[in-house]
Amino acid sequence: MNDKPIGIFDSGVGGVTVLKELQKLLPNEDYIYIGDTASFPYGSKSKKTIIELCKKRIENLIDMEVKIIVIACGTATSQALEEMRKIFNIPIIGIIKPTVKYLKGKNYKNIGVIATTGTIRSNGWEENIRKSIPDAKVQNKACPLLAPMAEEGWTNNEIAKLAVHEYIKDIKDIEALILGCTHYPLFKEIIERELKSNVDIINTGEMVAEELKEFIYANNLENSTEKSGNTEIFLTDLECNFINVAKSLMQKDRIDIQKID
Amino acid sequence: MNDKPIGIFDSGVGGVTVLKELQKLLPNEDYIYIGDTASFPYGSKSKKTIIELCKKRIENLIDMEVKIIVIACGTATSQALEEMRKIFNIPIIGIIKPTVKYLKGKNYKNIGVIATTGTIRSNGWEENIRKSIPDAKVQNKACPLLAPMAEEGWTNNEIAKLAVHEYIKDIKDIEALILGCTHYPLFKEIIERELKSNVDIINTGEMVAEELKEFIYANNLENSTEKSGNTEIFLTDLECNFINVAKSLMQKDRIDIQKID
Repeated sequence: MNDKPIGIFDSGVGGVTVLKELQKLLPNEDYIYIGDTASFPYGSKSKKTIIELCKKRIENLIDMEVKIIVIACGTATSQALEEMRKIFNIPIIGIIKPTVKYLKGKNYKNIGVIATTGTIRSNGWEENIRKSIPDAKVQNKACPLLAPMAEEGWTNNEIAKLAVHEYIKDIKDIEALILGCTHYPLFKEIIERELKSNVDIINTGEMVAEELKEFIYANNLENSTEKSGNTEIFLTDLECNFINVAKSLMQKDRIDIQKID
Repeated sequence: MNDKPIGIFDSGVGGVTVLKELQKLLPNEDYIYIGDTASFPYGSKSKKTIIELCKKRIENLIDMEVKIIVIACGTATSQALEEMRKIFNIPIIGIIKPTVKYLKGKNYKNIGVIATTGTIRSNGWEENIRKSIPDAKVQNKACPLLAPMAEEGWTNNEIAKLAVHEYIKDIKDIEALILGCTHYPLFKEIIERELKSNVDIINTGEMVAEELKEFIYANNLENSTEKSGNTEIFLTDLECNFINVAKSLMQKDRIDIQKID
């Protein structure tokens, strides 16, 4: 069991920001990543559709014999995580709860959330924050164009700068800004320049990696080999910009991807 | 039969650019418009999914007893029109053939096409152009962010200007540029400024209106009442920016929309 890989999926390249944090914290683990590029974007789809898509991706990962699954997608976590836990027996980690745990630890009360339209509508972030921090003030903002821009590789050009400004200009007096979609850490530099320096910009991947590490050690699931782990990447559609964005994100010259149906 | 409405659908607000041209040329007709906002964007979806969605929307329109259907969407025309004609008996008009007829009439040989990723991949425009104008040179460019920007209402700001520039800067020496997605006429002003003044920027809605008028008169289907026609608008998801974009496009203070499943 311990030598089995960790499964991780997202609608596209966004989850690679989470994968990167997992690899940093758990370098001996093997990873299987699925980018559901054929169905990108998740952010504008109905809950029903998201549930169907997540079911398929988790079935794919279970077929590949992973030991645990990380939903590295804000939309999928907010719309489908509970449902998936009812359907499947395998442990599944999303991006919301580990992040809320961190917020509570920091005692933040004024929190901004930027995410896809689907995530904001589901109210998944705000509901979970209020459960842990009842007196928190939450400012939500849907940013429907950011994930598509990230898939296009437009994360540090003038267009991205203006779009980020447009989306976050009205969020005021916050201690922390949650990047509630895993594509958004790709805009981190721009977001930092846009916000006051004392705002904690939260890359959920870091919290997910902490949570996963705790879970793996608590359940004696760690890969005990000393070699550095292997990562396999599968996409549901190869005709996309995934490789270019992922290469720059992972600072690699070459990434191998395979097709999965 | 003649008094029945004309059915028209698109993934979102883009088809309103076509509706507007139809209303101009056939003002006595009644129209029923469906914007499939719950499934927006079509442009990044597989052919199979587009076919399923078009089937549902056409069934909706047939249930509402329309006399003819206009697919006011480049992606749906290129991916599903043929299939729809096999399934349904009702006359169906897409946006590609009427436009190609116009190109041939103008004797254009150097043609640019901008459209969604799905449309460009399907090669629907280039194939149809070559059938009519075998020696045409066609330059294709997928612009995956433009339709989402139009739905967001970002059609005449700095972000739209930069995005349009980025997408069309490499298209050179053309006589005509086809706006191969019905959302793109919303960017017409910006595109005009970006291109040389002698390039014919083609709003497919105008050609579709001509084709529809011809068809209706040739088949004695015209609405003979003298009142100006009525338009009903249905959306598959009401939580979107449709109204604001449509209001400015149709230069109306108020637009009524209804929900359809």
